[in-house]
Amino acid sequence: MENAALAQEVLSGNRRALARAITLVESTRPDHREAAAALLEQLAGAGREAIRIGLSGTPGVGKSTFIESFGLMLANQGLRVAVLAVDPSSTRTGGSILGDKTRMEQLSRHPRAFIRPSPSQTHLGGVARRTREAVALCEAAGFDIVLIETVGVGQSETVVAELSDVFLLLLAPAGGDELQGVKRGIMEVADLIVVNKADGDLKASANRTCADYAGALRLLRRRPQDPEGFPKAMTVSALEQEGLDRVWAEIRTLLDWRRDTGHWQGRRAAQARHWFHAEVRQTLLARLETPQARELTKALCTEVETGQTTPGKAASALVTQLWPEMSRDPVTESLDLARDTP
Amino acid sequence: MENAALAQEVLSGNRRALARAITLVESTRPDHREAAAALLEQLAGAGREAIRIGLSGTPGVGKSTFIESFGLMLANQGLRVAVLAVDPSSTRTGGSILGDKTRMEQLSRHPRAFIRPSPSQTHLGGVARRTREAVALCEAAGFDIVLIETVGVGQSETVVAELSDVFLLLLAPAGGDELQGVKRGIMEVADLIVVNKADGDLKASANRTCADYAGALRLLRRRPQDPEGFPKAMTVSALEQEGLDRVWAEIRTLLDWRRDTGHWQGRRAAQARHWFHAEVRQTLLARLETPQARELTKALCTEVETGQTTPGKAASALVTQLWPEMSRDPVTESLDLARDTP
Repeated sequence: MENAALAQEVLSGNRRALARAITLVESTRPDHREAAAALLEQLAGAGREAIRIGLSGTPGVGKSTFIESFGLMLANQGLRVAVLAVDPSSTRTGGSILGDKTRMEQLSRHPRAFIRPSPSQTHLGGVARRTREAVALCEAAGFDIVLIETVGVGQSETVVAELSDVFLLLLAPAGGDELQGVKRGIMEVADLIVVNKADGDLKASANRTCADYAGALRLLRRRPQDPEGFPKAMTVSALEQEGLDRVWAEIRTLLDWRRDTGHWQGRRAAQARHWFHAEVRQTLLARLETPQARELTKALCTEVETGQTTPGKAASALVTQLWPEMSRDPVTESLDLARDTP
Repeated sequence: MENAALAQEVLSGNRRALARAITLVESTRPDHREAAAALLEQLAGAGREAIRIGLSGTPGVGKSTFIESFGLMLANQGLRVAVLAVDPSSTRTGGSILGDKTRMEQLSRHPRAFIRPSPSQTHLGGVARRTREAVALCEAAGFDIVLIETVGVGQSETVVAELSDVFLLLLAPAGGDELQGVKRGIMEVADLIVVNKADGDLKASANRTCADYAGALRLLRRRPQDPEGFPKAMTVSALEQEGLDRVWAEIRTLLDWRRDTGHWQGRRAAQARHWFHAEVRQTLLARLETPQARELTKALCTEVETGQTTPGKAASALVTQLWPEMSRDPVTESLDLARDTP
């Protein structure tokens, strides 16, 4: 399909076209990358925005059940729900062999839902860009909610937090009376702490865990981007579909407040800045992957290994030989170049 | 002092000149960076090599006492010992307000020792390069041993491991019977686990801790770069200066084996490759810090923030406008450029 036709299909909300567009942005082939950039540029003009909900939780907390129940509730209210997974570990754990669609069977069959299994990958920088672009595609396709899920391995929470309007941390009831081994830093990005499995034998334990976290949250200094009472801890039973409406109500309360106070816009602008800088770095480093850059790198690397030159000298030589104009005195030229600035 | 004169002084083993040279490589001023690169290039010709010992340990394990006792033992045997600190947290903890020389008073006064306090800094990438260059300067100044110390905050162990010929993990006796909270991954880079404070009331506890670690090490698969019995766990008392000669003997056994089998050379070559690639990335990214690059970045960033363009498109525009030659079709040119390869 041509790019323009694909863009039209995505804008019309066609889920197959959306899936194909995501496959395109996931590709690392240079011609695909170019087509993906053009497609994203075209779609950005539509100016569509979804509510982006980040969700993190370790295996076993019932993440799939929560997404299935929560997603179905929203879809049944008439909202269009997209689910994206960010799982840097999926190649190793084999956890996604069954696929995300099997994990969320009912939701995946819902006409207003779209589930994208996490691609296998190794490089987190690539994950971040692909996920950001997949989110943009879902927004262009007219989805109201984009749920971005991560198991929280390594830096993936940071990636998801930098993509989301609101960030949920899903937990299971703790066995003892102490706070679970939540990674440092995650409390600082979480807007809602949701203790799942508040049902059956675990209900009392879930309530205790929730109270523990609520207490811990009260000790934290209130962040400028939060209204009174946030971040908040609450219990749900994804299995019995209890408390999910409250989660949704809290998300809306929080985001309405952030829109009214300008924090929502500020966060989106900061995220855009962040992604721009990340793109610039990646664009520059990608220039090292051309055949002549590789060849020269290899030759210089041998000289460094055998001690004929130092790493710093060889690096300068590489950049100077590949791109002489990059190495001319920058200050004397700044005025001319600045004039070209759009 | 002129660069050539400074190089001569460093080569003659002058510790003041060495300190001045390290200050030069620590500077971020462009003219200093240039002088530093030239100096390192000059000194590399001398082809001098030290034994590089990496040492990691959390605060409280007696790292300073160990370095003081171990360093004095080596210096008294006639060896020249340099100590470098890698402490990404030093700006925050205030731990180095007293300075490393106060921590190791006797060693710092020894005529064959050189101690370099850790500079305050924030950017770990910078720490890595500075430390690598400081190690090269110490080698050029004729030191036999370069001890590179880190508290093991964040990624600093990885930095030190990528600089060292042998890596020591210093531990204190554990209170209970379980292994201490050693970060995952450090067991994989440690060549020797040294349990300190095997003296007085803690002696029995130190022996137990050592046995625990020895047991854990036996469960690990033997690495190709290790002779039989390595990595190894042992006890010392830095305070009573006991066991330090055994640590030194084990280090020599290990490194002799690695030299005989080519692993030592292979590791140095791999490290050189690693540093070269790191230098190339930094050299490229540094080009974004010129006035005209900053100006154009700022203008494009505003367009991204306001949604006028996408991060990817803006990043391409930035690179294309700043360095048009970088963006020409690489494949058609590869033969011509490859011909220039030295």
